[in-house]
Formats: sequence, structure tokens, C-alpha cells
Amino acid sequence: MTYKLVLLRHGQSEWNEKNLFTGWVDVPLTAKGMEEASRGGQMLKDREILPDVVHTSLQRRAINTANLALDSADRLWIPVKRSWRLNERHYGALQGKDKSQIREQYGEEQFMQWRRSYDVPPPAIDDDDDFSQAHDPRYADVKNAPRTECLKDVLERMLPYWESDVKPDLEAGKTVLIAAHGNSLRALVKNLDGISDDEISGLNIPTGIPLYYELDENFKPVTAGGEYLDPEAAKIAIAAVANQGKK
Amino acid sequence: MTYKLVLLRHGQSEWNEKNLFTGWVDVPLTAKGMEEASRGGQMLKDREILPDVVHTSLQRRAINTANLALDSADRLWIPVKRSWRLNERHYGALQGKDKSQIREQYGEEQFMQWRRSYDVPPPAIDDDDDFSQAHDPRYADVKNAPRTECLKDVLERMLPYWESDVKPDLEAGKTVLIAAHGNSLRALVKNLDGISDDEISGLNIPTGIPLYYELDENFKPVTAGGEYLDPEAAKIAIAAVANQGKK
Repeated sequence: MTYKLVLLRHGQSEWNEKNLFTGWVDVPLTAKGMEEASRGGQMLKDREILPDVVHTSLQRRAINTANLALDSADRLWIPVKRSWRLNERHYGALQGKDKSQIREQYGEEQFMQWRRSYDVPPPAIDDDDDFSQAHDPRYADVKNAPRTECLKDVLERMLPYWESDVKPDLEAGKTVLIAAHGNSLRALVKNLDGISDDEISGLNIPTGIPLYYELDENFKPVTAGGEYLDPEAAKIAIAAVANQGKK
Repeated sequence: MTYKLVLLRHGQSEWNEKNLFTGWVDVPLTAKGMEEASRGGQMLKDREILPDVVHTSLQRRAINTANLALDSADRLWIPVKRSWRLNERHYGALQGKDKSQIREQYGEEQFMQWRRSYDVPPPAIDDDDDFSQAHDPRYADVKNAPRTECLKDVLERMLPYWESDVKPDLEAGKTVLIAAHGNSLRALVKNLDGISDDEISGLNIPTGIPLYYELDENFKPVTAGGEYLDPEAAKIAIAAVANQGKK
């Protein structure tokens, strides 16, 4: 018997489209992002990989991705759990800033370090910044909520939730869907596949394509890297991101 | 201190529009129904009645109503609980049938008895009927799932959930949103307001307009009947239903 886990990264958000750093800012999906989510749910239905429980972040782009995908898969009625621990990486003072502008202002090296280094976070955001979540009621109960994060920070705050909430659902024999973000899912995949701190920077998870893992009794992937339910589309999306990095 | 409860009946579904008996058949909202839900959420936001937790049925028209309303109210991130006990009344063998046709076939009296009597259910649906939920995975764990219901049956299966899941949330000081159906909400209102078996047949809850109750320490409404957040629209909608019954 294997455990069944599906990871789904939310599709295009309004700020992806505008090329702004988003992080914890609660930006909605675009119409394209909504379509991606529905298509992802259709893939689950077609493959009969039917979630018994869904875990999401507290951000509407992941929540609506889950809702649209589950509606397509005819599984909207399953139990729902949410946690800030599945949130996107907090982008600190960069939140709300234009990516091209930051690249120009700070140079390519600093820009890439903030985006891709494993353990160097951007500067922390001020509590009175327009794009701070210091006064957001959804995080009122989170002790020492982050004001910036590197991927390492994301991994460290995500793993306790994996242990306390996701693993027990898997152990109960449930097919688990996690609808979350580029970096919270990269952190999870790093942990599942045992990817090194250096190698994780090269790993991108495409949006809207369910990534399906079967895990053995030790929660190790039966197939390293899992399986994208639309492998062709995943390949194209991954190549596109890689090329983006090169220009 | 009072408890804060908001009831929201889902808006127009595809079968409302087609004039078919729906019950437990899992019909989606129409575009109009989706708009109603979003508008309902906007009313909550405008009045600053912000749910801390949402309870829904297992039916997509109520779930999507909750999702759309909470998105409008910027509360999509709150905890979610679902139960079949909040489902619409099971309409038995009438599910999937045209209302006008049933009225013609069985006559006005029988038709109105099935629709409005407190304790006479329609004939039970066969398990192999196209519109039966006997094989629906969402009800696999429900013991003796109904195959038809009168309003009394709805009240009897809804109240245990009210006691076990809704009341504790209210007692914890949470503002509770229940997104559900005409009859599961009528059953709840009957119980809250102490409406008699005879009088409940005349009570209709309009779609998409949040019905707000403040409850005292004994869970009795501070204002009998609660308060519709758009009282004018509610009055018009209630009069329209009453007139419909007369023709």
C-alpha cells in the first residue's frame, strides 16, 4: 500500500501578470489562473485520483485554486484544512515591488540571490508598509509571524504542519490534495525527494498541473520527483521558466 | 454578550431555473446564483459582520455560495466545516421531476402537501433511480441516509449538528456563517424562533440575502426572526414567493 499525495500550485494571479513580487499579499487569480485550476481538477477526475481531503494556505489564490479544481473533479464536498504554514514565501520588503525595477536597482546578482538563494531572505517588511500583513486578521493568532523569508524559512515553518496535519491524513489512507504556492511546494518537494540546498534553486513547479506522488511507508516517493498528470505541459512550462532565468 | 449567527441560502441553481425538484441532486449555481452569493458577501463586509467559521452542506450550490460570499467579504481563509446534515431536504422520488408536470399529474392538493406539509414526505426514491444518491461517495459514511424527507425529518437530522458543531463555535465567541438550503435553514429558523409546525409552512427564506441573528445565552434570538441585511430586497423576495403559491 502506498500513500497518495497530490500537489497543486495555483495558477496565474493578478500580480504574476503585472510582474510584481507577491509573497503574502492576498492577490486574486486572473481568469487564466481560474481556468488553469479547473483544468487541473479535470485531470484529477480523468485519472480518477480523487482527493479525500484538501489542505490549503490562507491565501485566496490557493484557496480558489482548490475550490475550482475540486469543483471540476466533483469533490468540492471533501473536508478542508487551512494553514498559514502552507503560504507562499514571505517576500519581505520586496512585496508589492516591480521585479524589473528591483533587478535594475539592485543588479542581477542581488536580485537572483533574493529570488533563488536557499538561505538569504530579502530585507524584512515594515509593519506600516502598505503590503505588510502585520494587521491582517487571518494571522492574528500566529506567533512571530514572518516579515520576510528565504526558502529555508519556508521549509522550517511548513514541516511542522506536514507532520501534524498532512501525514496523519495520509496514514489514514486518504488521498491528500495540497493546493499551495511555488515556494511552499518547492520546500515540500525538497523534503520528499531529498533535494540538496544547492539543487533546489533549479527546481520549478509549473502552475495548475497536478503533481502526483505515491509515497512508501517511510513517506519516500515511489518515483523520484513524482508524476505530473500532464507531463508534456509540465515539460514546456519548466523549460519556459528555465529560459526566463537565462535572459 | 450575544452569539452571532448568519444564515445564507444559496442563490439560483440550474434546476431552480428549469423548475425541477432538486433535493439532494448536486446541481450547480447559475451565473445569477453566483452573483447573488457575491452580493451577499459584500453585504457582510459592508456591515462588518465577518464570519470566523463557515458551515456548509455537502452540496456544491451551498459550498460555492459560501466560497463566493466569503471571497467578497475577504474571509475565504476561515475554517470550514461541512455536513450532510445541512443538506437540502431530500425530495425522494420527485427528484429530477418537473414541478408543473407533478402538479398536473397528482393535482394541486397532493403537490402542495409534498412541498409544504410538515410531516408528509414524498415517496422514497429507488436506489437505481438516476437521481438517487445511493451510490454517491460523499454519503458513503452516512448510516441510513435518507431516500426521502419531510421538513420534520430535516429538522431531526439537522439539530444534532447544530448541537455538536455549531453551538460550540458560537459559545467560543465566533461569528458563524451557515451556507445552506431553503429547507435546512427553515428547519433551523423554526427551532430558533420557536415556530409551530403549522406556521412554518408559510415561512420562506429569500436566496442570497444574509439573515443575521444575535442570540442570547439560551440561543434565543434577541430579535425574533433575525434581521435581513437587505430588508427591502428580502421583503420583495418573500412577497414574490407568497404570490407564486397563490396562482
